[in-house]
Amino acid sequence: MRIGILVIGSELLDGKVLNTNCRDIATLLYPLGHEVLFSFTVGDDEGRILQALESATKTFPVDAVVMTGGLGPTHDDRTRQALARYLDVTLEASAEARQWMAAYLKRPEEQLGESQERQSLIPLGSRALRNEAGTACGILAHAGDLKIFAFPGVPSELRYMVANHLLPALASNGQLLEKKIWTFGLPESEQRRRLEGLTLDPGFDFSSLPSERGVEISLKMRCPASQATEVQTKLESNWARVLGALPAETLVHPDGLDLCGTLHNLILEKKFTIAVAESCTTGALAFLLTGRPGSSGFFKGGFLTYSNQTKTRFLGVPEDMLSRYGAVSRQVVEAMVAGCLERSGADYACATSGLAGPAGGTEDKPVGTVWMAIGNNLSINSSLWHFRGDRTTIRWAAAYAMLNFLRLTLLEGDHPSPEKSVSA
Amino acid sequence: MRIGILVIGSELLDGKVLNTNCRDIATLLYPLGHEVLFSFTVGDDEGRILQALESATKTFPVDAVVMTGGLGPTHDDRTRQALARYLDVTLEASAEARQWMAAYLKRPEEQLGESQERQSLIPLGSRALRNEAGTACGILAHAGDLKIFAFPGVPSELRYMVANHLLPALASNGQLLEKKIWTFGLPESEQRRRLEGLTLDPGFDFSSLPSERGVEISLKMRCPASQATEVQTKLESNWARVLGALPAETLVHPDGLDLCGTLHNLILEKKFTIAVAESCTTGALAFLLTGRPGSSGFFKGGFLTYSNQTKTRFLGVPEDMLSRYGAVSRQVVEAMVAGCLERSGADYACATSGLAGPAGGTEDKPVGTVWMAIGNNLSINSSLWHFRGDRTTIRWAAAYAMLNFLRLTLLEGDHPSPEKSVSA
Repeated sequence: MRIGILVIGSELLDGKVLNTNCRDIATLLYPLGHEVLFSFTVGDDEGRILQALESATKTFPVDAVVMTGGLGPTHDDRTRQALARYLDVTLEASAEARQWMAAYLKRPEEQLGESQERQSLIPLGSRALRNEAGTACGILAHAGDLKIFAFPGVPSELRYMVANHLLPALASNGQLLEKKIWTFGLPESEQRRRLEGLTLDPGFDFSSLPSERGVEISLKMRCPASQATEVQTKLESNWARVLGALPAETLVHPDGLDLCGTLHNLILEKKFTIAVAESCTTGALAFLLTGRPGSSGFFKGGFLTYSNQTKTRFLGVPEDMLSRYGAVSRQVVEAMVAGCLERSGADYACATSGLAGPAGGTEDKPVGTVWMAIGNNLSINSSLWHFRGDRTTIRWAAAYAMLNFLRLTLLEGDHPSPEKSVSA
Repeated sequence: MRIGILVIGSELLDGKVLNTNCRDIATLLYPLGHEVLFSFTVGDDEGRILQALESATKTFPVDAVVMTGGLGPTHDDRTRQALARYLDVTLEASAEARQWMAAYLKRPEEQLGESQERQSLIPLGSRALRNEAGTACGILAHAGDLKIFAFPGVPSELRYMVANHLLPALASNGQLLEKKIWTFGLPESEQRRRLEGLTLDPGFDFSSLPSERGVEISLKMRCPASQATEVQTKLESNWARVLGALPAETLVHPDGLDLCGTLHNLILEKKFTIAVAESCTTGALAFLLTGRPGSSGFFKGGFLTYSNQTKTRFLGVPEDMLSRYGAVSRQVVEAMVAGCLERSGADYACATSGLAGPAGGTEDKPVGTVWMAIGNNLSINSSLWHFRGDRTTIRWAAAYAMLNFLRLTLLEGDHPSPEKSVSA
């Protein structure tokens, strides 16, 4: 089906807030074969919401419109009023909406406040939609054949409403067949260059999307359900050619799992324990390593040693090594690994030390220089990286690169290979 | 002036790419007193681009439209064609555009390829705009009083074009006067309740924006430059009334600095050193504390003690205390603080221990329960919090709440007050 999105929020038009809702809705609709024809953003103004709804639905042949935002408890929230004007009906309190809010707030209906009463209003003839992720109910209205959904704009609530009310209401008229994989360690431009010579069967759509987490690539085709088997076979063979053109070690997981998820499963499967010693990444690495439930099974703790003094105090890095080679050096990250292994008792330890900037860079060691090491009781592997960007970008990029370094190390077996240097 | 944004790109409507261009344009326009009335996103389809341009300019009274995207070298890029149809003129090659592209690519004009020739086409009667950040030139066209700018969609190129071509072309017809402050510790709804009784002078626009970092509130008015002094005086007195209606301890910084920046400056000013012992937040607290340059001056390192074993091993928390009270308890976070102070030698230590979920909650200690403590050599202060949300949300929320707890503790003086419990 063809969908239009109408996003309501003045904060999205004055640069304060990045609009992630259109992306979130599209991400859920797209794999089911639905097409988003437009996304229209206007401020919290009843007249403008109404005008946008009228002009966009007149211009684009959509089957459904999803409105998001403007259902909150304040007087600025005007979506329900604009929708009622569009439908040319009055607003009325929904008994169901009141019950659901009372249940959500764990309080008797009689104790609902003025703002909740406001949130229970829906256009006459429309239907309230339960929101189990917040107080603001959604609304489903019909204007002729056009379905109009109004959902709260809080991203977590919106995703709940899309999954539980929008998707079930949309009949799928086709199928999207898609293969996806995360890659890490090869820039998108270099990936494209390697894939340029490849001729794919017509109708397949290749795309790649770079981020700090790597590059996610995909190959897809929409088709009628009746052709799905045939197209799936073709997809598999085209996909195999795409993957064959890329270095195997850059492919994170054949089932499309991302770097964090792949590493989490790999560590659990190999039954290793891990500890960290972080300098420039100061917690980012540990935060990512423990992002999934079950990580307490392998995470043996960490040391945040941001200064020379703490590297010596917490990890036993010799003072003369620090003054001789500097904190950002192979010698120091390897000593951090050794100290971390000893103190944590973990099977593997990871260490980072680098210059996140903006100040402190030199010609030899510019901002973005990061030394990393991974080791166990048999050997220690270290590598030198250069990252670009601001302080926060460099720190996250280093943490993700470390995760990939750990993934590759664990895949190589129990005995890390000799030292190597890599540049990103 | 009043601006409309038209974003072109199919990848923005299938969920693959997050649209940051609208936010980037608005961020540059807003402080100069311009207002963005709408942002309209459509796919790379000539007909849809044309329809969106026609319907949006008919519906909204804008002085200028900024189109972004669809100026690239491929056959999918249809913005110049759609703009020419809107203006009802043909496309012609721009000699300037060809020169600039040759200069950018450092190659003679005769060696420009087919794709560059395509990129030199602009609607008859319009003007090419130089892009020093990429190959795709911009276009400025006029339709009656309406100015239409077409810029490339690559974010870095777009920002260049907005700064160098859009802003200079827009006459500023007023000024935006604004006061802003971050608050922390009072939910937005409760804030609104306290402000409801307040009558502000007409014309002022109050807004509030909640996030994990607190609630940012602002009061603003647009006015002609000639009235700026008078409006500024009124703004100051109205703002004082807004701030007076809110608890002083929830106001983060009078100059609008956020929680992290305020705390960073406060720690440096008081010349304290800080160390952390993190369980459920596993690095998030340290990452935020070291987010600004200069933090190496006060950050004395951290211990990530995610398991009972590491709490004992790294921090000396007694095993029988852990088995008697559980890891998520006042006793344990206070012992973590004591161990962290001793081992780091810092003036203050902060500790967190909680249940980030999704599993592991009990009736007594549901998911989202977090104990926090802060202490120095004189005393330790602890507090109990309850957060909602998924694992990642709970961990970041706990880290920010801890930063605020630290801010309040440091403001109270060198001797923390007796223990207190707070719920969020």
